[in-house]
Amino acid sequence: MKTFNLAIVGLGNIGTEVYKSLNKNKDIIKKKTGFKLNIIKVSAKNYKKKRGIKLSKNKWEKNPLSLTKNKNIDIIIELVGGNKGIAKKLVFESLKNKKHVVTANKSLIAKYGDQLSILAEKNAVNLLFEASVGGGIPIIRSIKQGLIANKIFHVYGILNGTTNYILSEMEDKNISFKDALIKAQKLGYAERNPSSDVKGIDAAEKISILSSICFGCKILNKGFIVEGITNVTIDDINFAKELGLKIKLLAISEKIGNYIKQRVHPCLIPSSLDIANINGVTNAIVVDGAPIGRTIYEGEGAGKGPTTSAIISDISSIMVGNDDFSFGHSPKTKKNFKKYNFNNHECKYYIRILVNDKKGVLYKIASIFARNNISVRNLVQKPKNNLSNIVLITHYAKEINVMKAMKSFTKNKSIFKKTVLIRIRDQNKL
Amino acid sequence: MKTFNLAIVGLGNIGTEVYKSLNKNKDIIKKKTGFKLNIIKVSAKNYKKKRGIKLSKNKWEKNPLSLTKNKNIDIIIELVGGNKGIAKKLVFESLKNKKHVVTANKSLIAKYGDQLSILAEKNAVNLLFEASVGGGIPIIRSIKQGLIANKIFHVYGILNGTTNYILSEMEDKNISFKDALIKAQKLGYAERNPSSDVKGIDAAEKISILSSICFGCKILNKGFIVEGITNVTIDDINFAKELGLKIKLLAISEKIGNYIKQRVHPCLIPSSLDIANINGVTNAIVVDGAPIGRTIYEGEGAGKGPTTSAIISDISSIMVGNDDFSFGHSPKTKKNFKKYNFNNHECKYYIRILVNDKKGVLYKIASIFARNNISVRNLVQKPKNNLSNIVLITHYAKEINVMKAMKSFTKNKSIFKKTVLIRIRDQNKL
Repeated sequence: MKTFNLAIVGLGNIGTEVYKSLNKNKDIIKKKTGFKLNIIKVSAKNYKKKRGIKLSKNKWEKNPLSLTKNKNIDIIIELVGGNKGIAKKLVFESLKNKKHVVTANKSLIAKYGDQLSILAEKNAVNLLFEASVGGGIPIIRSIKQGLIANKIFHVYGILNGTTNYILSEMEDKNISFKDALIKAQKLGYAERNPSSDVKGIDAAEKISILSSICFGCKILNKGFIVEGITNVTIDDINFAKELGLKIKLLAISEKIGNYIKQRVHPCLIPSSLDIANINGVTNAIVVDGAPIGRTIYEGEGAGKGPTTSAIISDISSIMVGNDDFSFGHSPKTKKNFKKYNFNNHECKYYIRILVNDKKGVLYKIASIFARNNISVRNLVQKPKNNLSNIVLITHYAKEINVMKAMKSFTKNKSIFKKTVLIRIRDQNKL
Repeated sequence: MKTFNLAIVGLGNIGTEVYKSLNKNKDIIKKKTGFKLNIIKVSAKNYKKKRGIKLSKNKWEKNPLSLTKNKNIDIIIELVGGNKGIAKKLVFESLKNKKHVVTANKSLIAKYGDQLSILAEKNAVNLLFEASVGGGIPIIRSIKQGLIANKIFHVYGILNGTTNYILSEMEDKNISFKDALIKAQKLGYAERNPSSDVKGIDAAEKISILSSICFGCKILNKGFIVEGITNVTIDDINFAKELGLKIKLLAISEKIGNYIKQRVHPCLIPSSLDIANINGVTNAIVVDGAPIGRTIYEGEGAGKGPTTSAIISDISSIMVGNDDFSFGHSPKTKKNFKKYNFNNHECKYYIRILVNDKKGVLYKIASIFARNNISVRNLVQKPKNNLSNIVLITHYAKEINVMKAMKSFTKNKSIFKKTVLIRIRDQNKL
């Protein structure tokens, strides 16, 4: 019976849980895969940190990069995080030295996944990252293997648990973004510096990875729309509620001809839509393909339990030797699809304008919309302190025109104090 | 590059689609798996049947069993169906003759899966059946591989699309079971003889398979509660609606100590529960495990597209050689857990009694409940023609006591014309 020797680099919350869980489940893994597993080395910043595990001195390695040259190691688990420094060096060097790599590092994969997967193929080793998207939900494995014969044309979902928790809390408790964020931080759902989550960067990295797997394209990791939820106020959430809509931060990717239309931004969706009722830190991913139709995958999007589950499933895949291609295709065959020009995007828009309620303000708004070929479907005006909120929903309009209109509003700060724009995703036009 | 030679047995709706799809996707499969695929033989009852595909005479095999001895064939796809006759012989003989087998045949797997998987392991071939549960949803692969390191304690869901469609239509259109069934038959969602679906047998076969995969136990295919939806009337659906509940046919399996508590029966569930809004032919499967927490999988539960998707994913798995154990464990290690005594089951019950509204009838009902230690939480009486419907919800009660009470009602046919019992599954007690 072959034994696989493992090294874990990074022993924070997740790394420690992986260490514990691998030791606890050794026998089960042996029974299910037919192979033995052995953690022979660990490396982290601080040996003395309390982790609730016993680390023998001879397992400890001070210099993680030296592990990549250790002949006895088969698999390296990278749990340092970030797309530079140690994490980057470790993964590149490990693959070059013919070590399999398992990582939860979406940032690294979104940035260097193409290069890394070429390196992995060249050296006949695996690079797997199930934990990088959707926490424990086996979404990457499902798309790569379960949907192997499908042509996928659309993947979208709630990929960031932190922002989904914040939006759910705002709606549920009628509190501000700031208060919801503080609560999320207290509960450990948001980091002290939450910008990667709340600005949509985390979701953007994840959808970049999913697109590449779904469509067989090179990773599209820049130049697409990435908007977070920092602009979403409790007013918007309440206006949405009145309209039977919910605000969700969605990551969306579609293949349209030879174009990839990829984006992350808050969306107003009907409360009856499949994923409208995914609340809290839960993630949900919707995949549309042929011949399968629509499949939906839900689960906790982060946390040590789900992440550990995904990492161990990757390790097991390597042991049974089933997962040749990181992105489901040989990296050489990945295509270089073009970026869809988002100016041509069409949808209904929710626009809220906080105005100095002077005479003629409605006329000014109407004329800006008319000039830009935007027609308005609903309009509500509500006083807000000594100002007024004008909330409107447009008919289907073109992104470029809406952006021009928004620009006009920002020019006239004495009348238009603040504008908020949220795209609407309805049943007809997903 | 190795070529895998395939034979398809059974060329109905599904078989024909698999044939077409494999031919159409040959290149994609080659690119993704690194192996070639070739359909070298097909067999079905009638060569001349119109299928919209060209079948050369030399591909056609009249006697499907002879394929099991054909040295050139690596994989046999069984799409005949049923747990006896040709289907049974074909799968047993194929495995004995060291052919990999892919099948969508839940009935055969629920009945002979233990034996067949032993045979497969002995002969070092694969027996895969992703299409047998949840249509195209990659649920078996997700549990076996994606959740490999999890201890699963609970799996449940809507596993039969036909009955879910019927219940959804009844609720949506306010029509009878019979009318909804006729509609389902017209649309091809129900078979001419619908008994396997509407009596819960199909869902029972599927949950038997899932239990075995989730809990590593031998297949428990008899002696558990299997109730269908033939007793559910539009009255019950409407009463449920008033209570904020929905009726769903659920298949449920739990591991409690060394016991497996497996069952299929209609359930009243709160409209807010995760799967309450799964309508039409959609299937949804909920898996609770540690460390992953809860994951949910949704998609079309049947039809040629989803089924074909699942079958091809199994074929690809065999080609890349990744799926050693049919049920995720060596069949030798499967445990023989005991059946939970369902008499001890506790839940709230919905009971509807159609009564001859004579004096003292309510007293009779109350005394039967009191005698059996059942306390009533809500009670509504509504006239129905010249009779009355008495609808009540119990507090948590024990199955054995409720069954005794139901028996008492059936004894007195002159007063109690009909009784309907539906178990309630609430948020507290799943």
